[in-house]
Order: sequence, then C-alpha cells, then structure tokens
Amino acid sequence: MKKKTGHLFVISGPSGVGKGTLREKLFQQISDLSYSVSVTTRKPRRDEEEGRDYYFVNEETFKQYIKDEKFAEWALVHGEYKGTLLNTIKQNLEQGKDLVLEIDVQGALQLKEKFPQGIFIFIAPPSWEKLEKRLRGRNTEDEEILQKRLNNAHSELKQIKHYDYLVINNHLLEALKELKCIIIAERCRVRDGLSDFKL
Amino acid sequence: MKKKTGHLFVISGPSGVGKGTLREKLFQQISDLSYSVSVTTRKPRRDEEEGRDYYFVNEETFKQYIKDEKFAEWALVHGEYKGTLLNTIKQNLEQGKDLVLEIDVQGALQLKEKFPQGIFIFIAPPSWEKLEKRLRGRNTEDEEILQKRLNNAHSELKQIKHYDYLVINNHLLEALKELKCIIIAERCRVRDGLSDFKL
Repeated sequence: MKKKTGHLFVISGPSGVGKGTLREKLFQQISDLSYSVSVTTRKPRRDEEEGRDYYFVNEETFKQYIKDEKFAEWALVHGEYKGTLLNTIKQNLEQGKDLVLEIDVQGALQLKEKFPQGIFIFIAPPSWEKLEKRLRGRNTEDEEILQKRLNNAHSELKQIKHYDYLVINNHLLEALKELKCIIIAERCRVRDGLSDFKL
Repeated sequence: MKKKTGHLFVISGPSGVGKGTLREKLFQQISDLSYSVSVTTRKPRRDEEEGRDYYFVNEETFKQYIKDEKFAEWALVHGEYKGTLLNTIKQNLEQGKDLVLEIDVQGALQLKEKFPQGIFIFIAPPSWEKLEKRLRGRNTEDEEILQKRLNNAHSELKQIKHYDYLVINNHLLEALKELKCIIIAERCRVRDGLSDFKL
C-alpha cells in the first residue's frame, strides 16, 4: 500500500494578528502535529527560544542559505529575513507527519507555488483598531515600524483569495476552535490515502 | 454587496451506518442548520413523524413528482422510492441558509451533477461486522432485505472517491465531532462571499 503523506498546514496573516498564540494553543489541543521552526535574522524577543520559536541566524548565514537553495520560502519582512527550510517540509510530509507552518503572507504565496497541495489558512484581525491595539500592546516596536506593519496588513488582506480558509481572530477561543476544526476536517478529506478506503 | 448563498451539506452512506443518528445529534449542536426533509414511499418506522423525518407519499404520487421534474435527486433504494425536492434546496441556498441532506449514495451522486458546489460527506462503518450488527439491531427488516443492504454497501463504498470527506462511524461522539468540524471548517472556506473580505 502506498504510504500516506502528511498534510501541510500553513497558518499565515498580517503581523500582530495573533498567529503565534493561536498556533501554540493549537499544539496544546492537537498533539500529533509537527511544527516547522523558521529561520530568521531578527533578534529574539524576551520569551523566545532558539530552536523552539526560531533558528536565529545572522544575515550572512541567511544569504548563504538562499544561495544554496535551502529555503522552501523566504521573505524580507519589515527589514528582517525569515524563511522555511525545504528539507524540514519534505522530511515531515514523507514520514506521514502533519506539519504546521506559521509564516507571513509573502512566504505563504511563494510556498503555494511549490506545495499547491498545502492547506492555506489566513488569520485576519476583526478590525483595524484591534490590529493596531495588538501591535502597540507588544511594546517591542517603534512608531515607524508599527505604521509599516499596518500598511502591509492592508495589502496582505487582498491576498485572502489565494487562501483556502479564513479565520477571523476576534475571540481567541472561537478562532482556535475554527482552526482546530480545519485540521480535523482536512484529515477527513478524501485524497490519495482515503479514496481507496477499504473495510 | 452580493448576497451570500448557503452551503449544501450532503450526508450520505450505506443503510445502517448511522447517518440519521449523526444528523440528529449534529442539529442539536449546530442550531443554524436547515434540514431537507426527503420524500419517500416507505412506511414510517415507529418513531418517525410526517414532515419531520420524511414526507410519506404513495408510489403514484412519487411517480407524478418524477414526471413533473420536482426532484433534485431520487432513487429506488431497497425497493422503496426516496427523493429530495429541488425547490427545497434552491430556496434554502438562495436565502443564505446552510442546508443538510441525509440521502443514500445513488442520490448523492445524482445531486453532485446538479449541485457540484455541494459538500459531500460519506459516512462509513468501521467494519462489516458492525454494519451487519447495526442492521440486525434495527429489527425492522427480514433476512433477505438485510443481505441486499449489505451487498449494496459493498458497491457503495467504491463511490467514496466521488466524495469530499470520509467520516468513519466507529465511536458516535468521535464521528460527530468530525462531522461538526467539517461544517465549521467549510464555513471558513474562502469562496464567493469570503474572498472579497474587507475589514
């Protein structure tokens, strides 16, 4: 019998929309998901850990990875590089593991070219006011960066049409429920492995 | 703005697989679903009610409906006619209501021709033993009908490839959770209404 390949779930959306929190809570509720740790040149935030939240590298290393075509997607977002290693994705899927990526919109669109079978989930804020409030609440950025992020969010929302699902993060628990359901439903979807289901 | 049309959910699978119970429980948990009551020539079971479970008609009336092209799908299943009125589907979807149909496999495949946008969910038994046990447990059919239903189930399982989702009804609560998640996930799916999402 053909081995079942894993699902590729891509959680994406503007900065400050709550992707990270949602992804963490999701992993607490569905235990058999793998997380693809991204590579970034940005400085770790206070509570972030090397290898758990990101692989933190310098710009030189990052650019070498680009040259070596190690990335499935990479982007320069708000002045910092971020990318996902191609090998991480391939290995997990081949082993039949369901892999979750949490990446920005630029990266998601790139990834869709390489992995059209991926399940692309856009996390949107309920309003501009809430998005701005969340970005300010982080307290880690200056005003200029904040405005840049809000501007980016405007154009990122126009990309929703390229995604499979839209989850509006108004109430965390509600959004989490929807995200969880998308995972559970997609696992029931009739594709390669299930279409020749036999008793 | 264009009015959002409703979703059409089609719950289908072999006789005795537990479609009816699942559908009932589903409606207890998701309140804003409409149910499309089927028309049938079969005799009501003890706990079934006209207009709630089925519209019970005689064969003559049913055949007149066929002639008048009133059906979105109809089938002769195990010697009895069953069908769904086209108007019921159209009206609900146009009003933006999410409609659930619980129909046999023959009917579902017909319906897919007319409503390719429908979400087709196959409910499968966990094993032949369990299916047979359930059919016997009903205690409403004679041995010949039972064997006919089991034979039909064999060929019906080959149709799973035409469905969007497969739910295996081993443990009722687990199957119910999956069914519920399919509804919730499909409501998050980016289609006509959501692709031009604006804040």
